[in-house]
Amino acid sequence: MSERTGGRLSRRAVITAAAATAGVAATGGALAATQRDGAPPRPSGTVPFHGAHQAGIATPQQQYAFFAAFDLESTDPVKGERLTPAQAAANFQRLMGWWTIAAERITQGHAPGPRPGGRPDVPPDSGIADGLEPSRLTITFGLGPGLFARIGQERQRPRRLEPLPAFRTDRLEAAWSGGELLVQICGDDLQTISRAFRTLRSRAPGVARLRWTQQGFLGRFGDATPRNLFGHKDGTANPRPGDAKFDRAVWSDGADEPAWFSGGTYLVFRKIRMDLPKWDTSSTRTQDETIGRRRDNGAPLSGGHEFSAPDLGKAAPHGGLLVPADSHLALVRNVPMLRRSYNYDYGFQANSQPVADHHDTPGEDHDHGQDMPKHSGGGHAAYDAGTLFCAYLRDPAEFVRVQHKLAESDRLNAFIRHTGSAVFAMPPGARPGKHVAAGLLPS
Amino acid sequence: MSERTGGRLSRRAVITAAAATAGVAATGGALAATQRDGAPPRPSGTVPFHGAHQAGIATPQQQYAFFAAFDLESTDPVKGERLTPAQAAANFQRLMGWWTIAAERITQGHAPGPRPGGRPDVPPDSGIADGLEPSRLTITFGLGPGLFARIGQERQRPRRLEPLPAFRTDRLEAAWSGGELLVQICGDDLQTISRAFRTLRSRAPGVARLRWTQQGFLGRFGDATPRNLFGHKDGTANPRPGDAKFDRAVWSDGADEPAWFSGGTYLVFRKIRMDLPKWDTSSTRTQDETIGRRRDNGAPLSGGHEFSAPDLGKAAPHGGLLVPADSHLALVRNVPMLRRSYNYDYGFQANSQPVADHHDTPGEDHDHGQDMPKHSGGGHAAYDAGTLFCAYLRDPAEFVRVQHKLAESDRLNAFIRHTGSAVFAMPPGARPGKHVAAGLLPS
Ligand code: HEM
Ligand code: HEM
Repeated sequence: MSERTGGRLSRRAVITAAAATAGVAATGGALAATQRDGAPPRPSGTVPFHGAHQAGIATPQQQYAFFAAFDLESTDPVKGERLTPAQAAANFQRLMGWWTIAAERITQGHAPGPRPGGRPDVPPDSGIADGLEPSRLTITFGLGPGLFARIGQERQRPRRLEPLPAFRTDRLEAAWSGGELLVQICGDDLQTISRAFRTLRSRAPGVARLRWTQQGFLGRFGDATPRNLFGHKDGTANPRPGDAKFDRAVWSDGADEPAWFSGGTYLVFRKIRMDLPKWDTSSTRTQDETIGRRRDNGAPLSGGHEFSAPDLGKAAPHGGLLVPADSHLALVRNVPMLRRSYNYDYGFQANSQPVADHHDTPGEDHDHGQDMPKHSGGGHAAYDAGTLFCAYLRDPAEFVRVQHKLAESDRLNAFIRHTGSAVFAMPPGARPGKHVAAGLLPS
Repeated sequence: MSERTGGRLSRRAVITAAAATAGVAATGGALAATQRDGAPPRPSGTVPFHGAHQAGIATPQQQYAFFAAFDLESTDPVKGERLTPAQAAANFQRLMGWWTIAAERITQGHAPGPRPGGRPDVPPDSGIADGLEPSRLTITFGLGPGLFARIGQERQRPRRLEPLPAFRTDRLEAAWSGGELLVQICGDDLQTISRAFRTLRSRAPGVARLRWTQQGFLGRFGDATPRNLFGHKDGTANPRPGDAKFDRAVWSDGADEPAWFSGGTYLVFRKIRMDLPKWDTSSTRTQDETIGRRRDNGAPLSGGHEFSAPDLGKAAPHGGLLVPADSHLALVRNVPMLRRSYNYDYGFQANSQPVADHHDTPGEDHDHGQDMPKHSGGGHAAYDAGTLFCAYLRDPAEFVRVQHKLAESDRLNAFIRHTGSAVFAMPPGARPGKHVAAGLLPS
């Protein structure tokens, strides 16, 4: 702890980090320390690290994402004794200090700096990203509900941070749920992401242990709305960064929250498995009416184009509504949240569970057509693909309200299963020289 | 079977496929059928499908790869009776016919065509790649050792295709090994790859079932040699496509092989897990001497630059050899094969096994340094990352010979574990109007 005081990274810590990596700095360009003063040009594809908000939320979505949840160690790794809240808080602070330095440096295209306790003959970096650009790398941290009691800071806990309630259709697996700390790494190059995670992970042992990881992707859709694995454009109705609507939906302004949390937000993370063979053998009409939009162009079924306002009351020519009342769209219209989800496709998982309870899926009969006989295993049950649903919002209660409605009657339920769940408070952006969540602990 | 005769796709099959997708052809550009005659421009990032060899082998490496192994169904899906070899052969031929049409079309930027048995009201494609370029998509097929007896074609089996022998250091898991059919999908966009796999998979039920899938990536290294997860440049000593040396190492010229296999090759696939924390806490010297090359610039330890010829006999100033005799490089120098491997990082796998037998790893003491206490779980044991090692070669016996040597004394053994293994004969390229491996079955 000699290098830091409270949330502040001392000049010495920063300089040590810089000096230790000067040898490889040629690859990464100028050092972060220099950058603050002399402002040399950033390497291409660099997203700023500092700011009022953490990067990786309002940032235009990168192509790949890696999510990792950690829990703080509860015992002293050497003595084996249970840690007091004050000791856990010191560990937390130490970890956030190291993580912040490393994240700042590698997102800006520099070497990560020394590992805590690293030997001088051991290279401080894995080297796997030597020669690679940051490719819009962002690293974003989150704090789970269980963290605050553990570090003795219940009073500083964001008011809206609570474990999510159970929903009727949940089929959660412990292996992919919960967590005291979240690391979210996004970028356009999987190798820089893999390196970033490795850098952070190598700073955790003795202090925190890995709980779960999940990885997702998007296609290279450019400025067009990306498509999810049901083929639908996903993200159409999102508020746009820069709009007042966006700020109101996403960022906490500190009202009714601890002051340190102003500029933060919450992340609701759900791993949602999708039954691709069932979807692929459903009719165009079923697919479109399940969502309430056309798959081909994203337009609401009430007419117009992708960005036309849906008319939820518009009657269909032969009775009923064009946008069915139990379609996804009709149930979720105008919820104040930013969805920044990723597709995932883990392929065939020999030991995993079937995607849906075939006996209780409402709606269309579960018939795969001639090409998908019922008794052919063929990896159908064990295939794990879907959406890593990520909602950033000022108030997770909005998610809870809507998800109860969806669990009750969403037509999508016949095709999906929620298998993982976690919620985090996402602290505001770090100020130069301070670590993420520095305001949480008294300095 | 009415649509085909032997390995030939009848005009009618091609036209039916074309007609059924005319509705979505606007997205994909002109139809494949037209392309052969009228030759409209290819969409950007398109790798030709036809040729003397299958694409995806001599093709400059794409950024992402998806490998999937299938087994033919052994029983009739309706009657439940065991299939005769002739029935299995008919199934195989049917599947290769559908797979070839689909692969040809989607790699060239077109819609995949109708699914076998698809209903007219069901969209023939998942739509998840609508609006995406092929991004150098290639689809490459392989045939496993068990296939030939099953389809009654032992006489046509490539002579060098046999299950690999056991190696001393093997720790293989059935879940990732073997297979009668291989589908290898490579490209620069994970979403087009996910779509391609889904297209092929939807043609398999009733005929073949999924056995395993594996996915890998490379960083965006451009023309530089990509780095593996140990930070080393990997692929430096590869023969270059176009050289006679490449052709001799990789392609079968039909001598001592069934005639239909001329222009084919073999793939040896090994899933090799790497102990990243152990590697990351080893000294620069250990890292370099394990491989026999410098991690930073890829030069052999005998001096020079990345592409300098190693001098395996050059003495070190204080005794011994600069390139240690049991370094990876010294053991594998000049083996006639093309390595086209991918990194993989599956993250934390709650139920998987530890990466190395810590009690029998030679060389450096297994000490993670201060940051990696021995008794901290922290995901170390359950973290699955490494290399999907892919060697394409005219004679798999070359792999076997070298791998026995490596298993005996490679310094790398202290850091890696082979957990998956498969071998396939990779047929020559398909000719227009014929399916892949058409020459295998009498027409
Ligand atoms: C795998 C599961 C899901 C799929 C495939 C899915 C798909 C979609 C699609 C295609 C749209 C229309 C395009 C758009 O505006 O993005 C949409 C909209 C939306 N979805 Fe979902 N969704 C899923 C789960 C959820 C969940 C769990 C929630 C929240 C509880 C949610 C909330 C929303 C919201 C708020 C909108 C915007 C509606 C509007 O204002 O027009 N979705 N979703
Ligand atoms: C995870 C396991 C492995 C790692 C990390 C690894 C790494 C490397 C590296 C860094 C090089 C030097 C650069 C280059 O020429 O590509 C190399 C070369 C090579 N490796 Fe491996 N390798 C692994 C497994 C294997 C296996 C299983 C084989 C075959 C049995 C093999 C065969 C070769 C060959 C033939 C060369 C070229 C040597 C030369 O002619 O200079 N490697 N490997």
